[in-house]
Amino acid sequence: MKSKTAYLTFNTPDRHAFINITPQVRKIVDESGVKEGMVLVNAMHISASVFINDDESGLHQDFEKWLERLAPHSPASYLHNQTGEDNADAHLKRQIMGREAVVAITSGKLDFGPWEQIFYGEFDGRRPKRVLIKVMGE
Amino acid sequence: MKSKTAYLTFNTPDRHAFINITPQVRKIVDESGVKEGMVLVNAMHISASVFINDDESGLHQDFEKWLERLAPHSPASYLHNQTGEDNADAHLKRQIMGREAVVAITSGKLDFGPWEQIFYGEFDGRRPKRVLIKVMGE
Amino acid sequence: MKSKTAYLTFNTPDRHAFINITPQVRKIVDESGVKEGMVLVNAMHISASVFINDDESGLHQDFEKWLERLAPHSPASYLHNQTGEDNADAHLKRQIMGREAVVAITSGKLDFGPWEQIFYGEFDGRRPKRVLIKVMGE
Repeated sequence: MKSKTAYLTFNTPDRHAFINITPQVRKIVDESGVKEGMVLVNAMHISASVFINDDESGLHQDFEKWLERLAPHSPASYLHNQTGEDNADAHLKRQIMGREAVVAITSGKLDFGPWEQIFYGEFDGRRPKRVLIKVMGE
Repeated sequence: MKSKTAYLTFNTPDRHAFINITPQVRKIVDESGVKEGMVLVNAMHISASVFINDDESGLHQDFEKWLERLAPHSPASYLHNQTGEDNADAHLKRQIMGREAVVAITSGKLDFGPWEQIFYGEFDGRRPKRVLIKVMGE
Repeated sequence: MKSKTAYLTFNTPDRHAFINITPQVRKIVDESGVKEGMVLVNAMHISASVFINDDESGLHQDFEKWLERLAPHSPASYLHNQTGEDNADAHLKRQIMGREAVVAITSGKLDFGPWEQIFYGEFDGRRPKRVLIKVMGE
């Protein structure tokens, strides 16, 4: 069995961001030498997400508006924010968008459908936060 | 390490469908010869889901109604649909229901609780779309 | 390849609970002897979740309130409950919070960010329900 572990760090200028990290994941999979296996990609912070969807800016704005409707920022309305935080909504948004993606590796490549792209979803940025990439297989 | 990769194709007559794919996944796991490991099952399209829940038609209708409330079809209200699509809501619904399931294989069987069943969730059908099954273990 | 399978059982006194199961998962990973790999942790019941978020009681109350807003208990409003159940909302809540977490194991440890903790999320308790832990690697 082969494995490889890598970390990406993001420090987004705004509170929210969607960043396509497919090229970075592809590079780590290439370097791992794994031909058949899986790669786990996950946010290491609990106010951020890794998810797979479309790389289309209109859709990303739809996601933003939708997440704000389902889990509004409104800092005064959450008990978590009485601890001195103002990011309770980010913990909720991350549950909708998910923590992680597991992607099959077949013949050394990410085994993707035509439009699948991996995104880092930031909901409380403006500080360094990490993503883990773990490749496992043979 | 053993691995096996398989693909299922669905072309649902309606826009929405929930299809129990547990028998197909079970068959691929059997054929893989893996006794201890994991199987990844994921939608390869970004307007569809793979998820694990109950095989009960009333619940499936509850899911439909609930998803329509959380992420209405209303094509005019999404920026994504200005690209010529009318399926922005499907991208949102898929985030709630999820892209993938990872299931343990123990003694050659899907290691499931009493009611767990694997579903393909279609939110923008009427064209061929694929599901990936990747078995990995020993 | 090494693997190890373990099961936890929970019988919560109330309908809802969030239980930090990180120590139990860590113990099973230690016992497995796996140094590089992955651990899958999943609810084996379809009205419960396993998810990764913050161990902060205010946030957990925020989750409760939020889930009740997105998927109210209101038993009379679901078709599923005509089968004699009253837990349709639990099946919906579990979709938001997720069924499973996959965590990387690096140098024999859960490869976690600073605040990541694994939770069992119960939405229909007061009876024994199980969580599966599957470790796989080398």
